[in-house]
Amino acid sequence: MDNRKKLVLGVDIGGTNTAFGLVDETGDIFAESVIPTRKYLTFDDYPAFVEDLCEGMSRLIDSLSFDFDLLGIGIGAPNANFHKGTIETPANLWKFRPDEPNPDESRRVFHLAADIEKRFPGKLVLLTNDANAATIGELVYGNAKGMKDFIMVTLGTGLGSGFVANGELVYGDDGFAGEFGHIVVEKYNGRKCGCGRSGCLETYVSATGIKRTVFELMAKMTEPSELRDISYNDFEASMVSAAAAKGDALALEAFRVTGEMLGRALADAVAITSPRAIFLFGGLAKAGKLLFDPTKWYMEENMLSMYKNKVELLPSGIEGKNAAILGSAALIWQKNGVA
Amino acid sequence: MDNRKKLVLGVDIGGTNTAFGLVDETGDIFAESVIPTRKYLTFDDYPAFVEDLCEGMSRLIDSLSFDFDLLGIGIGAPNANFHKGTIETPANLWKFRPDEPNPDESRRVFHLAADIEKRFPGKLVLLTNDANAATIGELVYGNAKGMKDFIMVTLGTGLGSGFVANGELVYGDDGFAGEFGHIVVEKYNGRKCGCGRSGCLETYVSATGIKRTVFELMAKMTEPSELRDISYNDFEASMVSAAAAKGDALALEAFRVTGEMLGRALADAVAITSPRAIFLFGGLAKAGKLLFDPTKWYMEENMLSMYKNKVELLPSGIEGKNAAILGSAALIWQKNGVA
Repeated sequence: MDNRKKLVLGVDIGGTNTAFGLVDETGDIFAESVIPTRKYLTFDDYPAFVEDLCEGMSRLIDSLSFDFDLLGIGIGAPNANFHKGTIETPANLWKFRPDEPNPDESRRVFHLAADIEKRFPGKLVLLTNDANAATIGELVYGNAKGMKDFIMVTLGTGLGSGFVANGELVYGDDGFAGEFGHIVVEKYNGRKCGCGRSGCLETYVSATGIKRTVFELMAKMTEPSELRDISYNDFEASMVSAAAAKGDALALEAFRVTGEMLGRALADAVAITSPRAIFLFGGLAKAGKLLFDPTKWYMEENMLSMYKNKVELLPSGIEGKNAAILGSAALIWQKNGVA
Repeated sequence: MDNRKKLVLGVDIGGTNTAFGLVDETGDIFAESVIPTRKYLTFDDYPAFVEDLCEGMSRLIDSLSFDFDLLGIGIGAPNANFHKGTIETPANLWKFRPDEPNPDESRRVFHLAADIEKRFPGKLVLLTNDANAATIGELVYGNAKGMKDFIMVTLGTGLGSGFVANGELVYGDDGFAGEFGHIVVEKYNGRKCGCGRSGCLETYVSATGIKRTVFELMAKMTEPSELRDISYNDFEASMVSAAAAKGDALALEAFRVTGEMLGRALADAVAITSPRAIFLFGGLAKAGKLLFDPTKWYMEENMLSMYKNKVELLPSGIEGKNAAILGSAALIWQKNGVA
């Protein structure tokens, strides 16, 4: 048996920064670094981004003082296609410049896995979206260890998700499964969504969603609230938790509404996949009981009786600043038989 | 290599009859028979049902004039739990008599797989619900051959479903996944459902659902219609197709409403599992274009743009009187590496 340490590179591509780290199978990060994604804003900057990312990863590898085997590179990114290893028409990455002569969106398909593999020949390079990476992270390092069927819901600016069935992440036929944030929960007079449609779950359940709910409630309710002193543009979702913790009626009602929307949607998701547990991850999930209690109540209330009181609603076990790097690294560890 | 013919017993337990047949891997049925389920109505009749079913299967096996290997027994039944091999609290099978001294519903868990295996020692006995059996049938014998990700929707009195992801049927943690008929599509003023809740998809999309829609439209519309001559209790779903084929405005509108409800729900299901195709099976699906056209239109209209025009909406390839037996038999064939 080979006793050399085995490590994996986990890469998280965000709109602002791209963070990457060398991770072992227990989730320890041995070195990490970051490059500013926002510097590579346009379509033409993509090759330089790949170049600088690979350069940064090579330096990170050289920085360790011990010998190790690099098993592969796992990447989490928006609009990532697992089957093809591509990032397809991302909203906030490598956009056409206004003067682009041929701004054909179908050209904005970036073959990132192949481009990186050229610089790291023979290494396994896997790519999936942020929420799917977090889901695999939960399976390998978090609270879903040993579970065959679970749902992960990531609550950030939007709502992402990952579905694990029969022990495998569901990527779907086209590699894009898990857009639970875009099931339509209000078909009449629903809120306008960034996807171009209306009434999507993430317009209600996300950092942006609860903010929109608060402003709707300011109009609907008459109770005084410290939140009424803050403008929409200055408002952050964390202010709702802070106010709710102090008993602010408007903030508490905002969490109830959010929990109702999420709980109802989860009851439907349970009817399709019948998971053992549902994990909530990300900013809004940190509100704890404020979010979990109404979500659980409405989920059970709306559940088909055969599923009632069987499905656990749990906090993520990989919450924290390195969750994205761990999730991406877990993509490779899972292929190597961990979890 | 053993050249003896290999066969499987496929069993379909319905509320009225239980049909069973000996099936080869191509879907040819070599012998079939039936016993009347309705004769074994009460909780106390269950042992006699098992006895007579096993007796019937043994006679069927003996009736063939050639030697063969029986690979196993696959069973489709309502409320079947694949993981446990049980039928749990079925609505129309083996109910308590009114004078039952201890009518505790938790006792109505029937260990059918184990009970049958006692009579056929060493044989693989698998049990799943009717819709899941049909789904495996589609995979082994039908239009889903070779597909890794698809959804099957069975339209009978109710709406059943099966989800295949990564080439495997999703049974879920508790063995009861795939209750797509019970996602809630109308949260305000939804139709009362047999499950005790309101607004479930199957109250709109099923033989019963389209009938309810027709009667709602009789009140809403003023157009004359031959359907207005039929009482609710005399009404059958097939009458809607017959009237629509003759251009009846009320019947056509009923199909549009049904297609809208189904199309919207499928758009949401696509966002979760991202299938290659969706198959429609059963009575209502036989209406062909009348159902498929509006369903496809509303599905595409409500789909997230990344999925648009990628997912096929197709008729089942196992439609016909033996679909249920084939589906149950396919449970065993799939375990033996077919499909």
